Parts: sequence; C-alpha cells; structure tokens
Amino acid sequence: MNSFLDYQNQQNMSLFTDLYELTMCASYFDNNKFEPATFDLFIRRLPENRSYLMFAGLEQVLQYLKSVRFTEEHLSYLKKQGFNSQFLDYLRGFKFTGEVWAVPEGTVAFPCEPLIRVTAPIIEAQLVETFLLNTVNLQTMIATKASRVIHAAQGKAVIEFGLRREHGIDAGMKVARCSYIAGCHGTSNVLAGLVYGIPVFGTMAHSFIMSYEREIDAFRAFAKTFPDKSTLLIDTYDDIAGAEKAAVVAKELEKKGLRLSGVRLDSGDLAATSKKVRKLLDEKGLEYVSIFASGDLDEFKIAELLRRGARIDAFGVGTKMGTSADKPYVDVIYKLCETITANGTSAPIMKLSEGKATLPGRKQVYRFKDADGFYERDVIALADEKVEGAEPLLRKVMENGKLTYSLPSLEEIRTTAAANLAKLPEKYKQLTAAPEYPVEISPNLSALIRKLRRKLTQNEIRQR
Amino acid sequence: MNSFLDYQNQQNMSLFTDLYELTMCASYFDNNKFEPATFDLFIRRLPENRSYLMFAGLEQVLQYLKSVRFTEEHLSYLKKQGFNSQFLDYLRGFKFTGEVWAVPEGTVAFPCEPLIRVTAPIIEAQLVETFLLNTVNLQTMIATKASRVIHAAQGKAVIEFGLRREHGIDAGMKVARCSYIAGCHGTSNVLAGLVYGIPVFGTMAHSFIMSYEREIDAFRAFAKTFPDKSTLLIDTYDDIAGAEKAAVVAKELEKKGLRLSGVRLDSGDLAATSKKVRKLLDEKGLEYVSIFASGDLDEFKIAELLRRGARIDAFGVGTKMGTSADKPYVDVIYKLCETITANGTSAPIMKLSEGKATLPGRKQVYRFKDADGFYERDVIALADEKVEGAEPLLRKVMENGKLTYSLPSLEEIRTTAAANLAKLPEKYKQLTAAPEYPVEISPNLSALIRKLRRKLTQNEIRQR
Repeated sequence: MNSFLDYQNQQNMSLFTDLYELTMCASYFDNNKFEPATFDLFIRRLPENRSYLMFAGLEQVLQYLKSVRFTEEHLSYLKKQGFNSQFLDYLRGFKFTGEVWAVPEGTVAFPCEPLIRVTAPIIEAQLVETFLLNTVNLQTMIATKASRVIHAAQGKAVIEFGLRREHGIDAGMKVARCSYIAGCHGTSNVLAGLVYGIPVFGTMAHSFIMSYEREIDAFRAFAKTFPDKSTLLIDTYDDIAGAEKAAVVAKELEKKGLRLSGVRLDSGDLAATSKKVRKLLDEKGLEYVSIFASGDLDEFKIAELLRRGARIDAFGVGTKMGTSADKPYVDVIYKLCETITANGTSAPIMKLSEGKATLPGRKQVYRFKDADGFYERDVIALADEKVEGAEPLLRKVMENGKLTYSLPSLEEIRTTAAANLAKLPEKYKQLTAAPEYPVEISPNLSALIRKLRRKLTQNEIRQR
Repeated sequence: MNSFLDYQNQQNMSLFTDLYELTMCASYFDNNKFEPATFDLFIRRLPENRSYLMFAGLEQVLQYLKSVRFTEEHLSYLKKQGFNSQFLDYLRGFKFTGEVWAVPEGTVAFPCEPLIRVTAPIIEAQLVETFLLNTVNLQTMIATKASRVIHAAQGKAVIEFGLRREHGIDAGMKVARCSYIAGCHGTSNVLAGLVYGIPVFGTMAHSFIMSYEREIDAFRAFAKTFPDKSTLLIDTYDDIAGAEKAAVVAKELEKKGLRLSGVRLDSGDLAATSKKVRKLLDEKGLEYVSIFASGDLDEFKIAELLRRGARIDAFGVGTKMGTSADKPYVDVIYKLCETITANGTSAPIMKLSEGKATLPGRKQVYRFKDADGFYERDVIALADEKVEGAEPLLRKVMENGKLTYSLPSLEEIRTTAAANLAKLPEKYKQLTAAPEYPVEISPNLSALIRKLRRKLTQNEIRQR
C-alpha cells in the first residue's frame, strides 16, 4: 500500500477527507439526523494585494460529487478506526444525492460571495467538504494569481513554467489548467498538454549547453534537431557572448532558408540584458529573432521589466505563479447556512465567532453592470429575494446528485475568464492598492442577520 | 480525457515533465549523444529563517525511476508535437538504467550538498529531471517546515490538519507523509491513514454545533456516538460559555463511568482563553480533560503561545505548515556536473551564471561529528577523494536501474529524522537568526573549481 500513486484513483477520493467529516457524519447518523442542510463554499477575505478572485475548480468538484463511493477496503479501514457497523452499512450505499448551485469557472468573484452552494441530507453535504475546499483552494488561488501575471504582461505571451516547484502531481496538472484559464498561452507540462489539450512549450536547459564542449556546438546541435523552432538559451556562461553565438547560428540557418525562433534569458538584469541583446541581434539583421525571458518572474517583476522598457517578447513564469508564492492559499471555507427542521421549515444558521461570522440562509449573488457591461457592484441576497436589474451569478449545476449543467470546455472557460476580466474595471486590476469592489448585503438578508444575532446571543452566551 | 484524475496513474508519469526535457533529449538522440552524464539534485540556498533542510521524497523518486515508461498514447501525442519517429521508437523502449546515490529520507542536510546523484546515459538522466525536482521540492519543503513546528511545540503533540488548503490531491497525501516523518503525531487525512498507516485524528466542525438547536445538544449528540473519545469544539458562539457546557457533558459522562477526552479552541487569543478554560475545567474536577488548539498556527505562533504560558496540550496545525506558507518552495535544482567523453574520460562540468554557479564532478558529502555524535560540519568532496573521520551521507540506492537499497518503512524514516534532529546542535534549530552550519569544499574539489573557472572564462567569454 505504500507505493507511489497507488491511492490516486477516483474511487479512493471518498477517504481524501479530514477524519472529522466522518466522525460528525457518524454522529449525525447515530442521532438520526438526515434532514437536508445547505452549505456555502466561499472565500472569507482576499489575499494581500488581490482585489478580486477568479473562480476555478468546479469541473473537478462536480466529477467528484458524481462519483464519490466507499469501497470495502475503505470500510474495513474505517472499522479499524472504531466506526460502528450500522454507519459503515450506510457508507456502503453512500451516494451524493443533493442539489448544487455554483458560479461558472472563470467568473470574477469577491469575498463572502457563495461560489458553490450545496443542499443535501446533512451527512452527504458534510462529507464532501474537504475535497471541495481542497479543489477550489488550489484552482481559484492559481487562476487568480495567473490573471494578475497576464494583466501585468500587457498582452505579451506568458507560458506557465512552474512544474518543478508546484506542490506535487495534482498541483502540477491543475496549475497548468488554471493558468491557461486565466490567459496563459500554454504550459511546459507535457501531461497537461495531453490531458487538457493545452499548448506546450519548451526550449532547453543549461545542462544541454554544458554537455557540449563549446556553447556554440550545443546551439548547432539543437538547431539541427529543431531547425524551424529553436529557442537558444544564451546565459549559461555570459549572455552577450551567448547572443553573439546565437547570431552565428541564426546566420547559418538563414543560409538554409531557415529562421532561428528566439533566444532565452534566464538570469541577471533582464531589462538591461534584453535591450543589449535586442540591439546586437537587430544590428545583424535578426529583428525576427524573439527574446524569451524567464527566471524568478511574477506579476510585480514583469510590470517592472516593462516599465523599464525591457525588450522581451514572451515570459516564462514558474515557481512564483505556480505556488502563488506571495500567498499560497486562499481563505476558502464551507459553512452551514441552513438546516431544514423535522417539520420541514427552514432554519437559517449563522456563526458568531470573533472575525469568523457567516451569512445565514440560502443565498444568491447578483451583479450590477453599467451600460457597457462593466461590473459596478454585487449584492448578496436571499435566494428567494427579488433583486431587479442585476445578473444572478449562481446557476443550478446539479440536482438529485445528477449534473444539470453542460460542463464547458477548457477553451470556453478561458473565454469566460477573459470576458470577465475585460468587464472588471481597470482600477480593480491594479497590482497593489486597488480599491475595494462594492459587495452589499440585501435588505432581507440584513434583517435576517440582525434577528439571528439577537437570538444566538441570548441562547448561547447570555444564559451562562 | 478531460475528466477528474484520469491522468493519475503511474504510467502516465513519463509525460509529467517539462517539454524541454523531451526537446533536449530529442536533440541528444539526433546528435548521437548517448554517453553517461552525472546530475546532482541539490538545494541552492535555504529559505528565509530555515537553517537546515530535512530531506524527503526519495521513495517516490525511486518508484518513479523504476517504472517510468512511454505508452502508445504518449508517443502518438508526442508525434503530434513534432517529434520524429526515430526518437519516438527510442522512447518506446525507454527504461531508466542508471546509477543513483542519495542521502536517506529524514536526513538533515544543507545547501549545495547533493541530495540525489544520478549517473546514466544523458538522455535518461535528463528526462527524469522534472519529476525528481517536483517530488523533492514538495516533500523536503514540508518535512523541513514540519520539523520546525515540532521543535517549537516542545514535545506537545502536533497533528497535521491542512488537507483543505494543501495544493491538490498529491500534496494532501505527501504533506501528511512528510509531516509525520518530521515528528507529527498524525494527520486529519483519512486516505493518508489508509495508504501510509499514519494515525488519524479528528474532532468536529462548527457546522456540527450549528446544525443543532442548542450547542449543548450538539455536545450530547457527539458524546453519545463517541462516549470514550469526544473532543468538543467550544468556540462556536463563545468559548467560555462553550467550556461550561462541555463541563456539563463531562459530568454526565462521569456518571456513566466515562471521561470526556478534550475540548478544542479554534479562534481568539488561544493563550488567554486556554488559561481560562483550564481553570474552569480544573475547578470542576476535570483536570483530565485536555485542551486542543487550532487556528492559523505555525512554529512562530506555537512558540509564542508556549512563551505566554498557554495551557494547551496538543496543536492542530494546518494551512501554514501544509503549504509552507512563509516560503512555499525550496530552491531545488538538478545540475549536470560531469559527462563522460566518447573516449571514456570524465569531463567535470560547472555553471558560471551570476549567482547560479554549480559544483563540478561526481561528489560525496561527509559529515563530521563530535564525541557525542553532534553534527559539527560537513565537507563536500569529490567522490573518489579520501576524507577521514567523517560519515559519507550519500549511499548507492540504484544500479543499472535496479534498486540496491532496502526502502525503509515510514516509521524507520521517522526514527531517522528524529535521530538527525537530536544530533543537530540546538543553536541551528532556532526559529530565526540561527547561525550558518559550516559546509566546506574539500581541497580537491576547490582545485577543480579553480581550474574549470579559468577554462570556461577563456573558452566561452573572452573569445568574443
């Protein structure tokens, strides 16, 4: 059982959960609590410097909900953990049968707005929490981060290059997926190319250069194999000396009617070096050779490079985007907002903990836009509340455990993301110190909050 | 192909790579470069505040090297990417046939020390780079981070609680594995319990409390299901009011001859609250009820809590450990250090790039210890160099592509880690501003570096 990736098949995902989901469910079961409950998945606050979120991960959430099951191996493990046989019998027949509402992937969203709303018998709704959080945390964090990098690059191509430092196999795949959604041109991850159809890009490493006696021998060897699409890494020993040798090879290719695609810089002062390399290449009539830059890049460095007039045509962005290095998580939570009591009436729920209060009731998010479609403000309202002149963001995606939503293709999600970013006013896309986008609480929801706050304070605190 | 986890089977891992590994290999193939080469996997510098590394991930690296293969699906994808049929035929028969040396998992290591040394025909050695880096980055980063948390907790239990914010499925599994190696008592991740045999822990969430009309009803329901092992979450509404209700339930259990295990705090000022809760429980004769704390913890917060005299018996540590939030990557690299020329002689290789220089030649790391076994200093030497009175850290783990090393169990790795940490002098375990552990370059390696630097400067830079 201890071997590599044995566990990574879909069935096993039912145990990819915090133990407390199972202990709570065992207790619900034991206490005959089967009534429906509604949970909101949302992000409590924005990470530093972020001024919006780009939602991603819904497809994997829905695939999971459709397929989550317990195998005999799981049940026998849970038995050893002390779960009783009645509960294990229940798990043996477990299926998710609930209703799910969600905003589409690629949607720009804001803190406290429900991104996924799950209504199901409380055991089912509770049991799926950890997987949903894990999936949305990773993908929304990365889509958000990558959208900032894309914005900073001002239309120049960005390739996702972070596979080696992303957190394991699943992260390597999902980062490629989400950074493509956010607008990257492609990825270095070949498996993501195969699985998701994302364009793949790659050049060469320093080791390739160093495996040859001389740098120019390495350039020639590579150009021999890829005569029509070589990008030569020129900074192994000295970038200017490297650029001169690349120019020699480019001229050799020209004699055969071929063109060198580009050169790549991976270290040093990329702004200054790119200008020198551009000048050197242009002076030799190699205006068509593009300059590709990589090395510790993120949205802030790219913005700085472009401000300094760097002559860079495309960016390879790795670790800092692929790990969301300045903030490697989002504050995503999954909170109970309603139960249905035994007699069928709705009981809205809220949490009072200091700094961790939640919004009660089944909710919808409405977005107001100006005449040109630019986003003006959002209103979080109760699901049955009328809000005129605004677009509801949550759509029903699952009913009775079955998909009621046609999953968009990755290209369609990417288009949604681009359209959302285009309609988010520029001021909210500033890399730092962006203003806060207005998210309001509707009148009915406000009234409900006041009512519940009074009740909770009385019942649970004052009584002591 | 777009569905959830389809790609996550072992065979597919051959394409879990940066495209440039394949383009370089295609060019090596095209240029008849099949001679052996040696690569070092090492970490260039320590992340902020870290003063050592705890190496982890070797088991997964070796499983990968043993099994990496290309399927027809892979080859047909690569064909569409423009790779020629001769190279694809080569990949069809691809197996890793090389020799690997590595330090055991759980070893304390330092920057620039080779952690894994791969010698193989250059195509094989190059092709495996991305997977090795991805695996070692995640696991070494987490083992290192978790060892700091364990140190800060001064012997109190630490449970890994970060599954919901770890970066996807593989990270969720590997974080549980590596934090257990580093000394955590267990994890909340049930699948990690099943797959790795790690003890699993869990209590309840706020949603459980809130699903009941009254907090005390929720406590009673849970205690009914787990009469001998309930830990009650007491801060949903008000922690002191919650503690009082937990005490009521504890007294009810006492009447049945049972004991409440503990209470859990998840918000607020944990030091102050834990003292109040301890006092409240003790005054009711509930000295045996333990206090478990969670909520945004890391090594710094735990150290601070204990400094302030917090009455906490065990810590649940989540996001900040599970994402290594203050530094979510290590600077792990995989660098060519030697090729064998066509006539069979060794050609040591080094890189000169600014701030990115590497150490040439096939190397070994020697550790000097004092009379009590405490680590004094390390020396990086050439593999064939004699270093007396020190322990060599790298062991041969694979030869001709076959394992020559008995993979230790997870418990054995955990013991190695504990033994290593025990012998690392206390000053290097300070959470901040620890002194630099001495890592020296041997005389022969120093001489080789000087020689190569002269040669490279002359050949590759001055000639322009």
